[in-house]
Amino acid sequence: MINLPQKVRLTEVGLRDGLQNESRFLSTADKITLIRMLAIAGIEEMEVTSFVNPSVVPALADAEQVMDGIRDLEIRRISLVANDRGYERALAARVDAITFVLSATDMHNRANVNRSQKDSIEMLERMAKRAHDDDIEIRLAISVAFGCPFEGNPGLSTILRLVETMVQRGFFRIGLCDTMGVANPQQVFDWTRAALTSFSDVEWELHFHDTYGRGLANILAGLQAGVSRFDASIGGLGGCPFAPGATGNVSTEDVVSMLDGMNLSTKVDINRLLEASDFVASKFARRLTSNLWQVRQSQCSA
Amino acid sequence: MINLPQKVRLTEVGLRDGLQNESRFLSTADKITLIRMLAIAGIEEMEVTSFVNPSVVPALADAEQVMDGIRDLEIRRISLVANDRGYERALAARVDAITFVLSATDMHNRANVNRSQKDSIEMLERMAKRAHDDDIEIRLAISVAFGCPFEGNPGLSTILRLVETMVQRGFFRIGLCDTMGVANPQQVFDWTRAALTSFSDVEWELHFHDTYGRGLANILAGLQAGVSRFDASIGGLGGCPFAPGATGNVSTEDVVSMLDGMNLSTKVDINRLLEASDFVASKFARRLTSNLWQVRQSQCSA
Repeated sequence: MINLPQKVRLTEVGLRDGLQNESRFLSTADKITLIRMLAIAGIEEMEVTSFVNPSVVPALADAEQVMDGIRDLEIRRISLVANDRGYERALAARVDAITFVLSATDMHNRANVNRSQKDSIEMLERMAKRAHDDDIEIRLAISVAFGCPFEGNPGLSTILRLVETMVQRGFFRIGLCDTMGVANPQQVFDWTRAALTSFSDVEWELHFHDTYGRGLANILAGLQAGVSRFDASIGGLGGCPFAPGATGNVSTEDVVSMLDGMNLSTKVDINRLLEASDFVASKFARRLTSNLWQVRQSQCSA
Repeated sequence: MINLPQKVRLTEVGLRDGLQNESRFLSTADKITLIRMLAIAGIEEMEVTSFVNPSVVPALADAEQVMDGIRDLEIRRISLVANDRGYERALAARVDAITFVLSATDMHNRANVNRSQKDSIEMLERMAKRAHDDDIEIRLAISVAFGCPFEGNPGLSTILRLVETMVQRGFFRIGLCDTMGVANPQQVFDWTRAALTSFSDVEWELHFHDTYGRGLANILAGLQAGVSRFDASIGGLGGCPFAPGATGNVSTEDVVSMLDGMNLSTKVDINRLLEASDFVASKFARRLTSNLWQVRQSQCSA
């Protein structure tokens, strides 16, 4: 269909964006088991944890232990970091890459990290320099890029200005995140196309939530705009604390299944992936939001 | 995004494809109320019932009464018809249009209507002539067009041959139906493009189930291929008796919501539509599969 990328690279974010929004604590041993299952399924890159304040995000309080338990795996280990203290911990734990989050709007930035957008930008400039010196890859996730619960649609020009600001500060791997799941495919196509055209040196990524069932349609639009890197979450884990009713990330199972059908290789084995889904479902003792997983469950019980 | 149709026309199929797959009987009065609510929301065309054997589809045993109860509405009333007896009943009830179903594969055709595909084609040829004489619009729904639970993927050439057969027999409004929900956007785009190119006189329609969460992505692909008519089902009602675990049609709420975001007019008022969803949910006493409805519910209870 028109020009789609030959190869698609997925970053699994269930262990981070997923778990941080789940009320139930997944034990360290279970996290390590899940990461191993995902690696066996062929996932090459994962946000495995966050180095953030354990009292704020208790679900990920075991970041160091998780990192220690997956030393032998041949995957790229990404962690989220929100400040200097987290950076020190991530550095000590020898992560391969760090995700930094910056909101597209000031109000969401304050709600999310208790800091003005301006202050976050200053901090991120400093972090980027350190990471460069320490030879750690950095990726920037621009939250609520397509719509904010407090300020509404930030507008394309705001996003492009923010990207320019961050490119000048050393960020060259940037994700536009639809934290609320409110983006539509036309918007995704137009905005992503503009971003790719204006900043062709940036490695672009897209991150969608499936709140309104548009996750896969938005990925399709992103593919058509030329993006080949997408975040996805096993089982559709996650949510958005500032968007009541918002579901989690688009599920890795549904993304892989659709891309398989389109003959776009992700190198992920869908059956192995579903074993990881079953493990997640058993630990959380609930139905996953992944459509593929739900169909398989019904077939098993039919 | 590339060339999208300016205007999209939705055919509501919840009362037919939806209810026929629901175990709970919706009373005649409730059906009429629902149709009225959908009409108030701006739905201009609906499959309001089926004139089929009540012992086979008890959910729609009240077809005549439903038609009698909506005489005053300014909507196009479509009903499904499966044989001569049904045709007589639909004619007597003064429907505006009839949906005839033909499966893309012989095995599904036998399972669905207990008749070989060849016999169905002969019958449909006869029906098309009668409908032409009686001045009733006909539309053909090709079931399992993108994938069959018994025979797998029928292949594009099979579909194009079948379309040619039916065009020769007087069908000029034809829908490709992804009864199983197994289509992917690439397939939808390629096949629909081929169908539109080969048969430019046909008024094309697409009908998607959301089994694997691809309903909206497939609609997007169909729009890009040049289709402007889509079926959708209020609340995502429905399922597929031969596909365990298959969810219902893509929900009208999610389709309208996405198209609104894309500035593609459907003339449907989303808030009025959600009132109809709430009515359905209250009558079936369960959560609807519509993503938009689910988000609104969570917000109301938060």
